[in-house]
Amino acid sequence: MSTRTLYDLDLSGNCYKIRLMLSMFGLEYERITVDTRMGETQTQEFKRLNPRGQIPVLVDDETTIWDSMAILVYLARRYGDRKWLPVDGLDEARVMQWLAVSENELLYGLARARAVLKLGRPFDLEQCQREAATGLEVMEARLGNWEWLAMAHPTIADIACYPYVSVAREGDVSLEPYPAVRAWLKRVAALSGWLPMID
Amino acid sequence: MSTRTLYDLDLSGNCYKIRLMLSMFGLEYERITVDTRMGETQTQEFKRLNPRGQIPVLVDDETTIWDSMAILVYLARRYGDRKWLPVDGLDEARVMQWLAVSENELLYGLARARAVLKLGRPFDLEQCQREAATGLEVMEARLGNWEWLAMAHPTIADIACYPYVSVAREGDVSLEPYPAVRAWLKRVAALSGWLPMID
Repeated sequence: MSTRTLYDLDLSGNCYKIRLMLSMFGLEYERITVDTRMGETQTQEFKRLNPRGQIPVLVDDETTIWDSMAILVYLARRYGDRKWLPVDGLDEARVMQWLAVSENELLYGLARARAVLKLGRPFDLEQCQREAATGLEVMEARLGNWEWLAMAHPTIADIACYPYVSVAREGDVSLEPYPAVRAWLKRVAALSGWLPMID
Repeated sequence: MSTRTLYDLDLSGNCYKIRLMLSMFGLEYERITVDTRMGETQTQEFKRLNPRGQIPVLVDDETTIWDSMAILVYLARRYGDRKWLPVDGLDEARVMQWLAVSENELLYGLARARAVLKLGRPFDLEQCQREAATGLEVMEARLGNWEWLAMAHPTIADIACYPYVSVAREGDVSLEPYPAVRAWLKRVAALSGWLPMID
């Protein structure tokens, strides 16, 4: 019998990326909550799963994968059709460009701004908000002309970028200047299998 | 006639990733120096190439690709054999795990620590050095048992992680506690086509 377990926290946008993808692919899984705020990712036991000491971690039968970007690639290749992660090199690189934005401007900008205000983490709020603005401007420019980030259809790039943009206001970042981004948020939320970050 | 242009800066570890890969694949290209320190990535003209305002950017004939991670994926798929970036989903995810380390602990830890000391950038040096240590510990654990980061042979994961680790001391981060990482640096430098960061 196959088992699938997500080490997860409802508040985490990186975990939400994986919950979205699993839901959109119609995959069942067990959730185990690991509370970063209680140091639960820093225990020796947890670091045997992920030496980086971070969530999410996916255990799919015998396979353990850490890192949200890597898990998205794994899920798309194993359970998605090629649209979610193209096999053509140039198209795949287009997806990677936006995965990079999700790992940089959105994670170190938007997510950290949110972590300052919501979790009291000691980052420089204004610096985070400036980085967030760069990411949102780049997204706005793309989404002014296209419905989706990397291709003419949704890919894992959209799933990777969605969570922290959808809660931008929690980092005191307004989406008012980004109408194309706001329209894209609605398109993602209309995809089959979408679910909210916190039930 | 085909043309290939890299928008580049010798000091940039992200650019060095691409110079290494191009050299290992034996690909000719023109280098155009774009000096981030002089604001040259923030001009309207440059932002038409890359709306994020960052180097490297690769223009390969008619194709423009920004972001070092995306460029590595593009080059591996187009010019490399499958060893550099596997097509199997799980193997590809293993490569992505280390690309994520290169984009997170190494970029926001090691590279930013170096940027503080070498370029006077206003980041929190101790916070950067702590993030760097997490990345190096995870690498040390892997490389204590394996010769290469993602697979039993070199992949783009090794190319992505190499540059900022190789200049760790410029961010006042000692590699003394990481003997397996130091041995791996030597293995990368022995690969055919390797070249130094700055000639």
